[in-house]
Amino acid sequence: MTITLEKTLFDELEQIVLIDPHTHINPHAAASTTLADIMGYHYYTELAHSAGLEKAKIEEERLDPKTKVGRLVEKLCDLDNTIQVNWLIEMCREFFGFTDDRITTDNWEALYDSASQKMSEENWSQQVLDKSKLEKVFLTNDFDDKLEGFDTNVYVPCLRTDDLVFHFLKKSVRNRLNAASGIDVGDATTFREAIGKLFAHFVGKGAKACAISIPPHFSPTKVDAGSAAAVIKRTVKGQRLTTVEQEMLSSFVFWTITEYCSEHSLPFDLMIGVNRRVYEGGVYQGQDLFDKRVSLIQYKQLLNAFPNVTFPISVLGSTSNQELVSYSWIFPNVVTNGHWWYSNIPTYIETDTRSRLEAVPRTKQIGYYSDMYKLEFALPKFRMYRRVLAKVLATDFVTGRNWTEEQALALGKQILRGNVETIFKVSSQ
Amino acid sequence: MTITLEKTLFDELEQIVLIDPHTHINPHAAASTTLADIMGYHYYTELAHSAGLEKAKIEEERLDPKTKVGRLVEKLCDLDNTIQVNWLIEMCREFFGFTDDRITTDNWEALYDSASQKMSEENWSQQVLDKSKLEKVFLTNDFDDKLEGFDTNVYVPCLRTDDLVFHFLKKSVRNRLNAASGIDVGDATTFREAIGKLFAHFVGKGAKACAISIPPHFSPTKVDAGSAAAVIKRTVKGQRLTTVEQEMLSSFVFWTITEYCSEHSLPFDLMIGVNRRVYEGGVYQGQDLFDKRVSLIQYKQLLNAFPNVTFPISVLGSTSNQELVSYSWIFPNVVTNGHWWYSNIPTYIETDTRSRLEAVPRTKQIGYYSDMYKLEFALPKFRMYRRVLAKVLATDFVTGRNWTEEQALALGKQILRGNVETIFKVSSQ
Amino acid sequence: MTITLEKTLFDELEQIVLIDPHTHINPHAAASTTLADIMGYHYYTELAHSAGLEKAKIEEERLDPKTKVGRLVEKLCDLDNTIQVNWLIEMCREFFGFTDDRITTDNWEALYDSASQKMSEENWSQQVLDKSKLEKVFLTNDFDDKLEGFDTNVYVPCLRTDDLVFHFLKKSVRNRLNAASGIDVGDATTFREAIGKLFAHFVGKGAKACAISIPPHFSPTKVDAGSAAAVIKRTVKGQRLTTVEQEMLSSFVFWTITEYCSEHSLPFDLMIGVNRRVYEGGVYQGQDLFDKRVSLIQYKQLLNAFPNVTFPISVLGSTSNQELVSYSWIFPNVVTNGHWWYSNIPTYIETDTRSRLEAVPRTKQIGYYSDMYKLEFALPKFRMYRRVLAKVLATDFVTGRNWTEEQALALGKQILRGNVETIFKVSSQ
Repeated sequence: MTITLEKTLFDELEQIVLIDPHTHINPHAAASTTLADIMGYHYYTELAHSAGLEKAKIEEERLDPKTKVGRLVEKLCDLDNTIQVNWLIEMCREFFGFTDDRITTDNWEALYDSASQKMSEENWSQQVLDKSKLEKVFLTNDFDDKLEGFDTNVYVPCLRTDDLVFHFLKKSVRNRLNAASGIDVGDATTFREAIGKLFAHFVGKGAKACAISIPPHFSPTKVDAGSAAAVIKRTVKGQRLTTVEQEMLSSFVFWTITEYCSEHSLPFDLMIGVNRRVYEGGVYQGQDLFDKRVSLIQYKQLLNAFPNVTFPISVLGSTSNQELVSYSWIFPNVVTNGHWWYSNIPTYIETDTRSRLEAVPRTKQIGYYSDMYKLEFALPKFRMYRRVLAKVLATDFVTGRNWTEEQALALGKQILRGNVETIFKVSSQ
Repeated sequence: MTITLEKTLFDELEQIVLIDPHTHINPHAAASTTLADIMGYHYYTELAHSAGLEKAKIEEERLDPKTKVGRLVEKLCDLDNTIQVNWLIEMCREFFGFTDDRITTDNWEALYDSASQKMSEENWSQQVLDKSKLEKVFLTNDFDDKLEGFDTNVYVPCLRTDDLVFHFLKKSVRNRLNAASGIDVGDATTFREAIGKLFAHFVGKGAKACAISIPPHFSPTKVDAGSAAAVIKRTVKGQRLTTVEQEMLSSFVFWTITEYCSEHSLPFDLMIGVNRRVYEGGVYQGQDLFDKRVSLIQYKQLLNAFPNVTFPISVLGSTSNQELVSYSWIFPNVVTNGHWWYSNIPTYIETDTRSRLEAVPRTKQIGYYSDMYKLEFALPKFRMYRRVLAKVLATDFVTGRNWTEEQALALGKQILRGNVETIFKVSSQ
Repeated sequence: MTITLEKTLFDELEQIVLIDPHTHINPHAAASTTLADIMGYHYYTELAHSAGLEKAKIEEERLDPKTKVGRLVEKLCDLDNTIQVNWLIEMCREFFGFTDDRITTDNWEALYDSASQKMSEENWSQQVLDKSKLEKVFLTNDFDDKLEGFDTNVYVPCLRTDDLVFHFLKKSVRNRLNAASGIDVGDATTFREAIGKLFAHFVGKGAKACAISIPPHFSPTKVDAGSAAAVIKRTVKGQRLTTVEQEMLSSFVFWTITEYCSEHSLPFDLMIGVNRRVYEGGVYQGQDLFDKRVSLIQYKQLLNAFPNVTFPISVLGSTSNQELVSYSWIFPNVVTNGHWWYSNIPTYIETDTRSRLEAVPRTKQIGYYSDMYKLEFALPKFRMYRRVLAKVLATDFVTGRNWTEEQALALGKQILRGNVETIFKVSSQ
């Protein structure tokens, strides 16, 4: 009975039209043009490399897309157990008429060609949006993105702030800030003005959130004005900073950005826990890992200082989920946000989903985002999430607590879609 | 079949008469008098606040109980997914004849009134004890509690030592110790005598345990006599202590208390992992959170030094459960104790229960305590636990290992009740 | 249906002939001779001690085996819930014709005698191998083991390096190295030569892996030649080392060993996370515990420095499993290895297995090893694992992803057996 119920709920959840609140979509090339765009996603290149495919074979210069796909396909037999390859099969079946259950050295070429043909249709990205029931897709824009040439009502801008917070020591980043803001940053005051310009630009273009990914050791603190002024001055002069000064610089930039989030009522997505370049010999975007020794207590000062800023928080490690549940349960300004990266597999999604639904107000949970680079990924990723959500609603709510199917479904809808609207203040089309 | 089996085992577990080994009941006002006593429990106020209800609306001075409940009810629709609101509905149905499945702005007033009427019956607290099948309830008494005016055979005293260990620097605490012990504490010797007086008083009144909640960073160590003497002297003189000296003071007080536990054969409940006042703007009792970066290795010296003291240990974070399982499996004096606070939701209870039943001697597990402030909470909280326990016994033992229902039930009874008797040496009435 | 499917898959998995890739078998006395060999396994002595049996009763000098078993049996009633006692019952039923479901003070003597009789049969160890479907068993040999007098094709040597890495300060260890290598170690050069001799000896005898268990705080780093030379000199002269120098010594030894692993293409089993002698009053081998505050980020430098060395990694704490999954997913030279010690119970095995099958290439997972001291343990331990594996394959793959039973079974076979062959380069007989 529970199985039938799960199926019913899943089918209903599949009907919901989505707003995807976090992606890395390039709005000028939102959908894929060849299978290499899909299989070039770091999940596949890094898994193939992990299973033994040399990096040089994947990242060879001037490698044509078809050859690349051919090489990756040879490794798929070692990866077919992974949920990521499951997404791949599901995409091929849904979008390209693929009917087999494995992609092999025998059948890939036909698939490659039929996919290319399909993707070359004029309205391909719209087809993908329609088939995936995607209404809007949040972007993650560089701070100096002009945000022009696309429909910001569908591709919703979001200000990514990693470079500003963690790489402001780099001259290239400072130059980009000067250029984007039209302000020659020379001290803390002009720095603040420049950041203000970015916010004005983004908000003017309909941005609905700020976002940042953060290493495990970081703990933002308020830096006093004098120290901030000194450290900004030294930075713009190109002087070396001590480790303590670098932390101070990051904290000051972070704090300033949060102040503007407050001023503009923008939620600030915190994606906590990633160490960059841990595996230096890894493929593009396949080098980052984590240190689970991180705690949300590191954000105590921040969460107390900005009661008006909503922080949708993602954690990289499953061991951080209970802290996230507890902090969301206590802090009005903390919201649970999806299932990020290494936690984005059904085993962890299930435990995380169950615990959040048991202890966090239903208005404060953003169920899922795809984190995708190409539009085709939303369908299988959200479907994976919907399967888990249907299971939890069936087992814990309908069977376990005697909720009606309608009540369970209403909860599911709110988690999947409703809260995205209310938390990010996006209105339905 | 498993579902039927679960139900059968649950029904049997529901028949067991309980001793609740850890609560915050005030024996002079054990049961509630209005629904505000129940809905004023921090679980509801903090969740309502987290969902957007202003603290000022909840903690307004001279707020009458009915208005307070009315305000909280308006937020319940945002919280109805939580297991805590599930307890609330279950209490209202079991105790107050409530028949709906949600408390809403439409039906709450009638409920409030019928509840008030019910609670005003003369023998209300006895009715609650009877209906909840509660035989005894452990208290958590301040060290200067006179322990008079109530039946200590039903309301079992337990010495809470947080103030002594972590707040002895406060003059008010030192004054309370002087008053309670009748000793003017001026040095380590008189300090030890004073603590001895407290133990004599508590044990004389039938106390069955000592208890303390501990922040994540604390690691008790034995302080040498000279340092202890010096730091106590400085403390009673009101002098400032360095951080190191404060740790030393806490360790010395903690160690002294443990020595008296040994002398009086009292188990010492350690509740490990809470950081106080993390969210300073939170409602009463809704400000504490945790840092999961804590390990039981911090208790290595203590556990080795006191082989005769039983330590029932509770951990705040689910990520600490495996350490608790392993330490209980190895150390004869470590006992697993319930599912505390942020871990007290079915998702975590289930994993914790399964792992404990698989690897810790059955004599060394205290299944559950309610941690309640008002008697009405024992029923839904223990019921939640019994549901999980029944599921684990059915799945892992009867189905998984071919145990008979009788064998599984005997294990359940021991975990729920038998071990409380043997570990705390309480005899049945 | 899932239950039937699970059973079918389990029955098929039971047919697979195994290579056990990590044990502590003594090849000169591989099987047990009395029930005391089995019940003297630390799992039973430590659990009995934890449940209240005095260490002196277990480790009394000149205690005859039957009396020892009799004493342990008296505690079994307190431990019958544990999975470890489940193994015991399963061994007695499978190997000794035991037909009851509990070992009690009433039936143990007959069991003891029938077991002794059975074990005295001439080909007992071969009987156990056959019945357990064990083809090969990896050993864990001391570095000065002569590796003579047994069939290294069945009992595969493996070089254990704990003593060298963590106890080289002890004169006894240095003397053993000198004796085993025939080299008088006096400096870094002769040290390196001596280690080289060990490797040549082990590889010559068919060793297939190097192994080490590591405390949580350890983080191996490359030590520059000058510092290494200095610290080795001071060590062989018997001079005291500072903590920093000791870490350097351990790192240098560790690094040197890894270099030889690279040279000889030997996988290096890292078993990460054990603190030795935490409970000093514990029984033999029942004193070790852990500190979950450990991260694989501590191995960043190592994993990058030796791309050619395969590191099958075991973690002691379940909270480390997601890091292991993620590091195996990214690093080509990291492989998941079994379910170690305190994580070797179904609750944790299940979550670990699910997550690994969802995110790690199928070629990079060693499903299980027994870690046994006596041959009889492989059967119940592997059976426990097979039960969990069958459940995960049935639920997640056949039911959840529409795999055929054959596909699921092929995955199971690879995890259980195939990867042991490919990763350790052992060929089937």
